[in-house]
Amino acid sequence: MLRWGHRFRDQRVTTHVALVARAFGASKFILTDIRDQTVETTVEKITANWGGTFGFSMGKPWRGVVSDWRSKGGIVVHLTAYGENIETSNVMERIRSEDKDILVIVGSQKVPGEFFSPSVSDFNVAVGNQPHSEISSLAVFLDRLYGGKELAVKFKDAELRIVPQKRGKKMLKSGKQSTKEQQI
Amino acid sequence: MLRWGHRFRDQRVTTHVALVARAFGASKFILTDIRDQTVETTVEKITANWGGTFGFSMGKPWRGVVSDWRSKGGIVVHLTAYGENIETSNVMERIRSEDKDILVIVGSQKVPGEFFSPSVSDFNVAVGNQPHSEISSLAVFLDRLYGGKELAVKFKDAELRIVPQKRGKKMLKSGKQSTKEQQI
Repeated sequence: MLRWGHRFRDQRVTTHVALVARAFGASKFILTDIRDQTVETTVEKITANWGGTFGFSMGKPWRGVVSDWRSKGGIVVHLTAYGENIETSNVMERIRSEDKDILVIVGSQKVPGEFFSPSVSDFNVAVGNQPHSEISSLAVFLDRLYGGKELAVKFKDAELRIVPQKRGKKMLKSGKQSTKEQQI
Repeated sequence: MLRWGHRFRDQRVTTHVALVARAFGASKFILTDIRDQTVETTVEKITANWGGTFGFSMGKPWRGVVSDWRSKGGIVVHLTAYGENIETSNVMERIRSEDKDILVIVGSQKVPGEFFSPSVSDFNVAVGNQPHSEISSLAVFLDRLYGGKELAVKFKDAELRIVPQKRGKKMLKSGKQSTKEQQI
């Protein structure tokens, strides 16, 4: 998952994008062109506590990331409100039928026009054609790509694990073999 | 849709929550307990440009909003990572079978314990039991609730409308009957 166009005021939004990538089954988050230590620290802390193997890198130029990916046979999906509508078009079927590793690009309002061109993106996908958020776009794209199964995955080596309940909070802390539970 | 626990640093996140509510088919956004003029201005500008009738209110205490809703026969869904898993439980079927108007509560990390109790929430729903974002939680909940149909809706009286395309950007400006198009 490639995040482009992060500015300082986007710090919390970029962090949410990264956490969505992890929670919805992506294997890695790449913050291109700039570095942001706060985002890195938050994401690495979440992965350490909540388990799984989620990669994080930052600072590389986006062009190199895209061309490396394509040279290894992967495809690129650019999420944009201008793209083919995920609900009314057959774009998800066409993406699935490629059966290749996918690099998802999530930009901001002003992405370079090049992102839409065949030299960068194989598909331009719109999670609806209304303005909302790169966070929601990524979540719904991955939820539909994986058919919802990503939300049932148990992350390995987790220190913290929630036990889903109808009421209250139940969290297991594996290191201490203890249970913190709040019933209401 | 009720948003609780907004702090100043959450301004962009709260705005994204509101835009998701609108784009994914909710009829109204209620920012409880506090007021934030920037959020209101952004949401009203989006609705004016992109159409539809999306309500916005702020400043009312959450308790009153919830009790009013319930007294009118509506149900309350609290989105929380601790709740019943949207993928592995039958919670969505149970919500749909109620066939009632739904108030969705989206909080922040530290919501009052009361939110989990039967006096506030009819259902506690987790969009996965991993930490991510209130923005993604709301989007996926509404996407599944409406079976994706919300992303195909055409908003009435829109000044701006995107024409989905495989490549490039195409936007219609209805007031001027003109078309701005960028093909790549």
